[in-house]
Amino acid sequence: MPKISQKGANMPSSPIRKLVPFAEEAKRQGKKVYHLNIGQPDIVTPKVALEAVKNWDVDVLEYSHSAGNESYRKGLAEYYKSVGIDITSDQILITTGGSEAITFALMSTLDEGDEIIIPEPFYANYNGFAAAAGVKVKTIYSSIDTDFALPSIEEFEKAITPRTKGIVLVNPNNPTGYLYSKEELESLRQIVLKHDLYLYADEVYREFCYDGHEHFSAMNLEGIEQNVILMDSVSKRYSMCGVRIGALITRNKEVYNTAMKFAQARLCPPSYGQIAGEAALNTPKEYFEEVYNEYIDRRNFMVEELNKIEGVYCPKPKGAFYTVVQIPVDDADYFAQWMLSDFEYKGQTVMVAPASGFYANPELGKQQVRIAYVLKKEDLKNAVETFAAALKAYPGKK
Amino acid sequence: MPKISQKGANMPSSPIRKLVPFAEEAKRQGKKVYHLNIGQPDIVTPKVALEAVKNWDVDVLEYSHSAGNESYRKGLAEYYKSVGIDITSDQILITTGGSEAITFALMSTLDEGDEIIIPEPFYANYNGFAAAAGVKVKTIYSSIDTDFALPSIEEFEKAITPRTKGIVLVNPNNPTGYLYSKEELESLRQIVLKHDLYLYADEVYREFCYDGHEHFSAMNLEGIEQNVILMDSVSKRYSMCGVRIGALITRNKEVYNTAMKFAQARLCPPSYGQIAGEAALNTPKEYFEEVYNEYIDRRNFMVEELNKIEGVYCPKPKGAFYTVVQIPVDDADYFAQWMLSDFEYKGQTVMVAPASGFYANPELGKQQVRIAYVLKKEDLKNAVETFAAALKAYPGKK
Repeated sequence: MPKISQKGANMPSSPIRKLVPFAEEAKRQGKKVYHLNIGQPDIVTPKVALEAVKNWDVDVLEYSHSAGNESYRKGLAEYYKSVGIDITSDQILITTGGSEAITFALMSTLDEGDEIIIPEPFYANYNGFAAAAGVKVKTIYSSIDTDFALPSIEEFEKAITPRTKGIVLVNPNNPTGYLYSKEELESLRQIVLKHDLYLYADEVYREFCYDGHEHFSAMNLEGIEQNVILMDSVSKRYSMCGVRIGALITRNKEVYNTAMKFAQARLCPPSYGQIAGEAALNTPKEYFEEVYNEYIDRRNFMVEELNKIEGVYCPKPKGAFYTVVQIPVDDADYFAQWMLSDFEYKGQTVMVAPASGFYANPELGKQQVRIAYVLKKEDLKNAVETFAAALKAYPGKK
Repeated sequence: MPKISQKGANMPSSPIRKLVPFAEEAKRQGKKVYHLNIGQPDIVTPKVALEAVKNWDVDVLEYSHSAGNESYRKGLAEYYKSVGIDITSDQILITTGGSEAITFALMSTLDEGDEIIIPEPFYANYNGFAAAAGVKVKTIYSSIDTDFALPSIEEFEKAITPRTKGIVLVNPNNPTGYLYSKEELESLRQIVLKHDLYLYADEVYREFCYDGHEHFSAMNLEGIEQNVILMDSVSKRYSMCGVRIGALITRNKEVYNTAMKFAQARLCPPSYGQIAGEAALNTPKEYFEEVYNEYIDRRNFMVEELNKIEGVYCPKPKGAFYTVVQIPVDDADYFAQWMLSDFEYKGQTVMVAPASGFYANPELGKQQVRIAYVLKKEDLKNAVETFAAALKAYPGKK
């Protein structure tokens, strides 16, 4: 029997994968499981997008252009202008989800053994994309004590080696919900410039910034226009994770042309998703206001309730819809599993993502979990009550 | 300005990419361009698939399971049983097009520097997928003189090195239309077994076998059940290339689990495409009969007409909807460009794919083009008449 690849063996599993069978078993036992573990919002997709697909009159579902439909790219350029990012449609490559934008960005710029720096905790799937590209992820520590602010420039300097080719910044951040300020981005700009690095900017939560804070895009950093690769997605913006539409955006012509070669090999992004994505550009303002208010409400509620629990600390995130929470347990991995398999409260339990999966350093995150506030407030209320009861009942309390 | 990756620099361009601007210019000049260059059929997508998407009532376009919807996988297992391939739904991983199935198969089993053997001419995008995986493609020559039959086992033996990990077989073949026989597959089986190789079986044209010839699947080769990875797609079967739905199928649990890690990193395949794909399983028999008859008609017409042209040889392919044709020119790359930029016949011209792009050896295919008979007979008639006139008028005749 032939062997699998070393690359495949090194591919990390999804950090919550090992919990899935426990969640399924809990459901089989009749427990209601509240999913705070994944970024799958219950917010409805804009009608205008759903209707566009229903009304699309097509006889042959043909390949589209490898960079995506031109009309969609033109519409997207307008969208970016409206959020203060000045780019043209030929700097946009439509991808199959944000995931493919990340893959194309890494593959186009990095070779086996090259290194990228990511502040941890970080979106765990970067481990997978990096492993697929043969790239080494080096992390620098951002602490819950500063609510996960950007590590100092000195920390970045310490991590840089001759193989370092770029820095990944997810802003607003998944899993922490931290929103990086213009000042923090300016300090990144300097280090990018000094070492001639790529800045891989993952801004899929751009629309989710709270308390009057504005999003500052890496695309607007002066003097590093050729270094920035923006990776975007419609998944969260319009609550349509399933359509698998994203975009890679760069002013660097050579990077764009290289990414296009990867895009041509896989032929094209999904056609229905492009129809939905293009129509979603016409989502009425009120939709976003409603969604915004809903998330503010959910966040405020969650943060307040979580901080009421003894021994728990939850920062107040300014963006996205996640928060990394400090909890008084011996081992959050085990606690998360225990909640599913050994605990119930009024017939309910909660699934959370242990934060260890978001750290590269195995010593970190053992007393932290990521919570996604993606459920209705009524559900969040039950979930947090159950979570508090679980912490109280858990034998491995600290 | 930071550099692109060596991997990106090595990525081959699509073999027809350089012709695209010439085709666009020809259209601007008002010429009618017949596209015989790509496998984009004009056949309508089954109504049952299009209607299923229109009728899908959904409020939130959520992520699906990373392996694809369970109901679809179960339906697919039934489909495979119906074509004589006995597999279960948990051996099926739904992918984003056949392209992703190829990527997952290579990434899960091959490391940087490993080698795969492909008979040439071969589907050019394998170059891209191999380059992305850091894998070396070694080709062995299949000749138009034998209508592109499988090279002898001795040729395979000669190409095998300690780094050889597998053989790719596209059956029926793109670009040649050759249908490999059970006997040819049996001889492959022996070499796979002897050297413990993977057999990557690309069978996306399974339904397109002509003249009473039956398709024999690599999945039915005895004794190498753990070595075969089937890569499939709905694109051609149901003429829905744009939905980007395919599948990786293997009985090798370790390979499946490894591919699943790549699948989890990219989250899920497109949801609308899965709805269309699942519904397409109920495509009425008459649809396939009509399509079959249409292609037989087109093929017979094309092969006959092409062979009437002086100096042209066109084998009679038993499968798919391509044929590689020998033509009396100095350089088919230049001829293809010349047809677009310097030639017209009754206001028309033809775009073909120069065969050089389907060979790894730069010396091969210089007098060959790939022709896809994917247009209505009336269009094919005009196209082949134009093609004949072009060969007559071309100054670089041989």
